[in-house]
Amino acid sequence: MRPKHATALLVLLALLTGLSGCANSRAASRSMLASWSETPTRAAITSFVERATDPGSADYVPPAERIAVFDNDGTLWAEQPIYFQLAFAIDRVKALAPQHPEWQTTEPFASILKGDLKSALAGGDKAILQIVGASHSGMTTDEFNQVVKEWMKTARHPTLNRPYTDLVYQPMLELLAYLRANGFKTFIVSGGGVEFMRAFAEEVYGIPPEQVIGSRGKTTFSLVNNDPARPVLAKLPDIDFIDDGPGKPVAINAIIGRRPILAAGNSDGDQQMLQWTAAGLGPRFCLLIHHTDAEREWAYDRDSQIGRLDKAIDEADMRHWIVIDMKRDWNQIFPKP
Amino acid sequence: MRPKHATALLVLLALLTGLSGCANSRAASRSMLASWSETPTRAAITSFVERATDPGSADYVPPAERIAVFDNDGTLWAEQPIYFQLAFAIDRVKALAPQHPEWQTTEPFASILKGDLKSALAGGDKAILQIVGASHSGMTTDEFNQVVKEWMKTARHPTLNRPYTDLVYQPMLELLAYLRANGFKTFIVSGGGVEFMRAFAEEVYGIPPEQVIGSRGKTTFSLVNNDPARPVLAKLPDIDFIDDGPGKPVAINAIIGRRPILAAGNSDGDQQMLQWTAAGLGPRFCLLIHHTDAEREWAYDRDSQIGRLDKAIDEADMRHWIVIDMKRDWNQIFPKP
Repeated sequence: MRPKHATALLVLLALLTGLSGCANSRAASRSMLASWSETPTRAAITSFVERATDPGSADYVPPAERIAVFDNDGTLWAEQPIYFQLAFAIDRVKALAPQHPEWQTTEPFASILKGDLKSALAGGDKAILQIVGASHSGMTTDEFNQVVKEWMKTARHPTLNRPYTDLVYQPMLELLAYLRANGFKTFIVSGGGVEFMRAFAEEVYGIPPEQVIGSRGKTTFSLVNNDPARPVLAKLPDIDFIDDGPGKPVAINAIIGRRPILAAGNSDGDQQMLQWTAAGLGPRFCLLIHHTDAEREWAYDRDSQIGRLDKAIDEADMRHWIVIDMKRDWNQIFPKP
Repeated sequence: MRPKHATALLVLLALLTGLSGCANSRAASRSMLASWSETPTRAAITSFVERATDPGSADYVPPAERIAVFDNDGTLWAEQPIYFQLAFAIDRVKALAPQHPEWQTTEPFASILKGDLKSALAGGDKAILQIVGASHSGMTTDEFNQVVKEWMKTARHPTLNRPYTDLVYQPMLELLAYLRANGFKTFIVSGGGVEFMRAFAEEVYGIPPEQVIGSRGKTTFSLVNNDPARPVLAKLPDIDFIDDGPGKPVAINAIIGRRPILAAGNSDGDQQMLQWTAAGLGPRFCLLIHHTDAEREWAYDRDSQIGRLDKAIDEADMRHWIVIDMKRDWNQIFPKP
C-alpha cells in the first residue's frame, strides 16, 4: 500500500480536471471516491464540498476555514477486537517483562503475561491506565517513536492477519485526499495517544504530525549530563490530557483554535466534537460511521464495549447528520493487500 | 498596514524570481528582506534558507520538515514597558470593575483601579495570575475573541501612541514571509496567551490559529440549557499550561510533534526552545534578538524585568547562534504608520 503516491495522483487528477468545469469536477469526485458506492451518502459529501468550494455559492467557505477533523479508531482504521494501541501496549508489556519481575505477581500485568487479556482488563479504566502508563513511558519521545515504528512493521492483527496499518478504511483515505484536493486541512482528533498516531499518520493518512491531536502523557525537559547540546523530553507515566468526549472540543479550541466545518466520528466519544462542529455559523457537515458490516469488518453499535454508538446515533437521526452505513455505502473496506 | 497584501506580493515575487536561478533568487531575498541591513546577520539567514531549499545541497531539508518557531513578545512585536497582554488585562479589569465592587479593597485590583501599576505588580507572579485569571475568564471562548479584537482596535501604546498591532517588527514580518515563500511553515511558540494572540496573529503575521501555540487557561464544554445545538466552551480562571522556558519544547512536542529546524527568541524564556531546536540532526538555525536600540525601540538585556536576556545570550555566544543586534541589523523597526 502506498497511499501517499495514490494521494498525489488523485490530487493531480483533481487539479487537472478542476480546471475544466463542473461536469468534469463531478467526474473527478467520482474517481477520487471510487470505494464509495453510489448512494445518498456519497452524494451528500460531494454536494457539500462542491458548495463549500464554489465562490458563487451561498455556502462558500474560504480555504483557511476549511478545517476537517477525524476521529481515528473506528473512523479511519478498525478498532476491533481491541484498540490497536492497546495491542501495542500489551506487546510492549510482554517485551519489558524481563526487566520487571514484580509484574509476574502484580495485576494487570500478571494476567497479560499469562495471556489472559480478559482478566487483565477486568480492572477497567484503572487497569488500562496502568498498562498504558507502563508501556508508554520510561523513555524519551524520540525512542518511543522508534519503538512504535518497529512494532508497526512486524505486528499483525489477530484475526485478519494483516499489518495494522493495512486496516485503514480505503473510503476514508479517499475522502481525506478528496478534501485536501479541495483545499481542506485535515486533522485527526482522537482519544488515541498522539505520539502513537504520529508514528504512522503521515505515511498512512498523509496527515503531518502537527495536524494530529490526541490523548497525551506528561513529558519533562532536561539536559543529559547538564549538557545544553543534549536536551531530551522524557515520557512520564502520568496522563496529561484525555482527548475524548467533551475533551475533543476543548482540544480543538486549544490546539486548532478554529471551529471545524466538517467532523467525522463513529462513537459516543465523538458526540461533543460533532455538536461543536455543527453549531458553527455557515455550512457544516457532520458524519457518523455506523459499523454495519459483520462480514467484511464488524457490526456493532449500542452495546459495544469498544466504540459504543448509542447517544450519538440518536442525535444524528434528530439533527440530520450523515450516517455512513458501512455495508451499503462502501464497496471496499480496506486497501487491497 | 496591510501585511497580508504585502506578504502575497512578496510570495509572488519569490515564486516568479525563484524560477530563474540563483542570482535572481539572491536579489529576491534582498528585496524580501528590505528592512534588514546588509550585515552578516542577513547573510547568515539567506545562506541557511538557500542551503535548506536547494535539493543539491548537503543541508537540504524536505518541505514538510521546514518548521520554524517564533517567540512573540520581544521577538515579533515589542514588549515594553509591560507585556501588551498585561496592558489588555489591566484595561479589562478597569472595564469589569463596576461588576466587582470587592476589587476596590482587594489587591492587586485595588492598586490597578487607583492607577498604581507598580503596587499592583508588587505581588509578583501571584498578582499577575490573579489579574490574568480575572480578565481572561467568565466568558466563552467566542466572547473572549471578540473582546480582544475590540480592544486591539482602540487601545494605544502609552509612549509610542500607536495601536499595539502597529508595534510589530517589520524585519520579522519580512522574515516570516521570506520563510513561507521558501516552503517553511511558521509557528508562534510564546509565553503569551494562545487565545489572545490568535485574535490578531492571522491578520498581522499571516499565521493561522492552528499555528499559534501559547500559554492557556482551562476551558470546559457544556450545552446551554442542555440544548445539543448550543455547545459552549467557558473560560475558567485556572491556568492549564505555561508555555515558557522548558514548557516550550514540551509544547512543541505535544502540539507540533516535529522538531523545528529554525527557532527565534529574545529572552531566557526561549533558551530551552533554542536548545531543543539546535539538538536536531541536520541543519538548524537559532536566532536571538538583542534589544540594543534605545532610540528607536528599547535597549535591555541582563537586568531587565521583562524579556531578561542573560543565560541565553551567553549560550548563543558559546554555540554560535545568530544574535540579531537590532540597532545594527535592522534599518527599520516598525512598519511605517
